[in-house]
Amino acid sequence: MTFAVPAVPALQDVQLDARLQHKIARKTVPHGALGRIAALACRLGRILGTSEPRLIDPQLVVFAADHGIAARGVSAYPSDVTGQMVGNFLAAGAAVSVLARQHGVTQTVVDCGVRRDFAPAPGLLIRKIAPGTQDSSAGPAMTRAQCEQALAHGMALARALPGNALLLGEMGIGNTSAASLLVARLGGLDVAEVTGAGTGLDADGVARKTAVLREALAANAEATEPLDALAALGGFEIATMVGAIVQAASERRVVVVDGFIATAAVLVACRIAPHVAQRCVYAHRSDEHGHARLLALMQAEPLLDLGLRVGEGSGALLAWPILESACRILNEMASFESAGVSDKG
Amino acid sequence: MTFAVPAVPALQDVQLDARLQHKIARKTVPHGALGRIAALACRLGRILGTSEPRLIDPQLVVFAADHGIAARGVSAYPSDVTGQMVGNFLAAGAAVSVLARQHGVTQTVVDCGVRRDFAPAPGLLIRKIAPGTQDSSAGPAMTRAQCEQALAHGMALARALPGNALLLGEMGIGNTSAASLLVARLGGLDVAEVTGAGTGLDADGVARKTAVLREALAANAEATEPLDALAALGGFEIATMVGAIVQAASERRVVVVDGFIATAAVLVACRIAPHVAQRCVYAHRSDEHGHARLLALMQAEPLLDLGLRVGEGSGALLAWPILESACRILNEMASFESAGVSDKG
Repeated sequence: MTFAVPAVPALQDVQLDARLQHKIARKTVPHGALGRIAALACRLGRILGTSEPRLIDPQLVVFAADHGIAARGVSAYPSDVTGQMVGNFLAAGAAVSVLARQHGVTQTVVDCGVRRDFAPAPGLLIRKIAPGTQDSSAGPAMTRAQCEQALAHGMALARALPGNALLLGEMGIGNTSAASLLVARLGGLDVAEVTGAGTGLDADGVARKTAVLREALAANAEATEPLDALAALGGFEIATMVGAIVQAASERRVVVVDGFIATAAVLVACRIAPHVAQRCVYAHRSDEHGHARLLALMQAEPLLDLGLRVGEGSGALLAWPILESACRILNEMASFESAGVSDKG
Repeated sequence: MTFAVPAVPALQDVQLDARLQHKIARKTVPHGALGRIAALACRLGRILGTSEPRLIDPQLVVFAADHGIAARGVSAYPSDVTGQMVGNFLAAGAAVSVLARQHGVTQTVVDCGVRRDFAPAPGLLIRKIAPGTQDSSAGPAMTRAQCEQALAHGMALARALPGNALLLGEMGIGNTSAASLLVARLGGLDVAEVTGAGTGLDADGVARKTAVLREALAANAEATEPLDALAALGGFEIATMVGAIVQAASERRVVVVDGFIATAAVLVACRIAPHVAQRCVYAHRSDEHGHARLLALMQAEPLLDLGLRVGEGSGALLAWPILESACRILNEMASFESAGVSDKG
C-alpha cells in the first residue's frame, strides 16, 4: 500500500470569519466577556465552515499498542497493562469509558499493535501491525512500510467514522517515551526537557528513562524527516493516530487533542500537513512533564488545566462539554437587538 | 423577622475521608493521575456524606437587583440593563439560560430588588426588598432590617429548592462595585486591588470607579462586622445570595461558586459561618480584576480559567459537567482489582 497524504488546505474564508465575529460580539454579555468561549466558538465555526456550527455524533478513538522500548524499564507499569486496559475499555470500566458514557460520545478501541490478541468485540477494531514495536534504543521501532501501513489504517478508519468530531485517545505502556522522542527530534528540543514520569516514575526512574531515550535518539540519528522519525521513534498507536488526524483534518472534522501523546501525534501530523493545526482544539494541559513545553511549541492554549496524567482521551472528554457550550452560545443566545437589551453607550 | 444563622458544623468524618481516598486511589489509572478530579470527587463525597456521591436536580439561582451607586457612573452599562436581562433570562436567551438548558440545570431568577417590576412568570421569584439600594457612596446601601430580610429570603428560598446542589448566579448593574467594597472591607485589602472593569470600563473609568468606592468606604467607615458591612456596602441580590449560601451549606448541599460577585457573597457567608467554605466548589477564575486576589484570600483553586467575565452563573454552569464527571469516576470506574489490571510494582 502506498501512502498518500490527503490534502489539508488552509481555512481562509474572510467573510465567514467576519460573520462569526460579528455574531458572537452581539450576544447579550458585556463586550469581550465571553473570553475564550468566543474564540472557541469562532474556531469551531471556521472548522465546520458555518456560522451555525453543530457538533454531531462525536467519536472517541483509543489507539492502543505496545512498545519494544518498555523492556528497557522506561515505565512504572509492565507492558501487560496495555492489553489489560484494552479489556477495561471494552468492559466500560476505564476513566475514558465512564466519561464517554456521560457525554454521549462513542468509544472505539483500536488494537494497532498490542502484544496480546483479542477476540472480536463490539467497539474494538483490530488494525494490528505487529505485537509491539521493536526497541528504538537499539534501532528503528518499525519499518517504513509498517509506519505507512499504520498511517493508512488511521486514514481509513477516520474516513469511516460518523459525525464531525474526533476525540483522540491512546493506551500503550511506554508511549510517553515514544512521544518524548518524537517531540525532541521534530521540535529540536533536548529530550530531558520533554521527558517525565509517565505513569509514575520517581526522579531516578526519570533519569534512567532519559538516558535510554538518548540512546534511542543516537541509534536513529538519521531519522530527521517527519515520517522517518515517526517510523524510527514512534509507536503503532501514534502512527495510526497521525493517519486519523490528517484524514479527519482533510474532511474538516474537529480534532480534539488530549494530552502529551496525542499532542505529539498532532505535531507529527502538522509536520506532514501544516494546516492540520487549524482543525485542532486542545483540551487540556497534562501534568506530564514536557506537555506544557510541547503546547508552547505548538502555540496551543488548552481549555483545561486539572493536573491530569491519565491519557486515554480523558482530558478530551472532560473538555468536550465546553465545545458544545461554545456552539450553543453561538447558536442559541439572544443578541442585544433580539432581546431588547441596551448596549454600552 | 429576626435573623438567625442556621448551624453549619465542620465536616469531619475521618472514616468517610479514608474510604473516599482509598476508593479513588484504587481506580485503574496511574497513582495520582486523576489530578484535581480526585480531590473534587472526595470533596463532593464529604459534602454529601457518602462514598457514592450523586448530584441530584441541580439548581441555578440568578439573584438580581439594582444598585444606588450605579448612579455615580461606576458601570459601563445603564441600570435599565438589570431589568432587561431579567427579561432575557426568562425568555431563555441569556448565556446562563443556554448553558442551563445544555446541562439540565433548572434556572430560577429572583428579583431581590430590581428597579423595574415584573409580571409573575414561570421561573421568576419576586423577593423584592426595594427598587434598588441607596447609593453607598453617600451612606448605607440598605438598612440592617432590609439586609436581614434579604438574608431571610435567601434562606427560605434555598430551603425550598429541590436537589442537592446550588449554582450561584447574579445580575445587577453596579454589583462589581458592591462586591469590591465587601471584599476590601472584610478582606482588609485596599479597594484598588479588587476593583476592575466590571462590564467594560476603560482605565479612566476604573480610576473614577475606585475613587467612588473610596468615598463609599469612608461614608460607611463604622460598618466592619460582616452583617453591618453587607448592609452598608452590599446589594439586595448579594444579601439574598448570602442567605441562600448559608442555608444550602447547613443542609450539606454542594454550593457551586461562580465569579467575583458570587465569591464575594461566599466570603461574607464564611465570615458568618466559617464552615460554609467546606461546602463550596469554585467553578472558575473570572477575568474581573480582583477575582484572582479574592480567590487567593479564600485559598480557593477554581476548576476553570477561561477569561470569562459574564457573571450570571455562566462559569458555574461551564464547570458543572466536571463535577458530574468526578462523581461518575468515583462511582462507575473499575478498580485495579475489579478490572484485573496489574498495579505498579
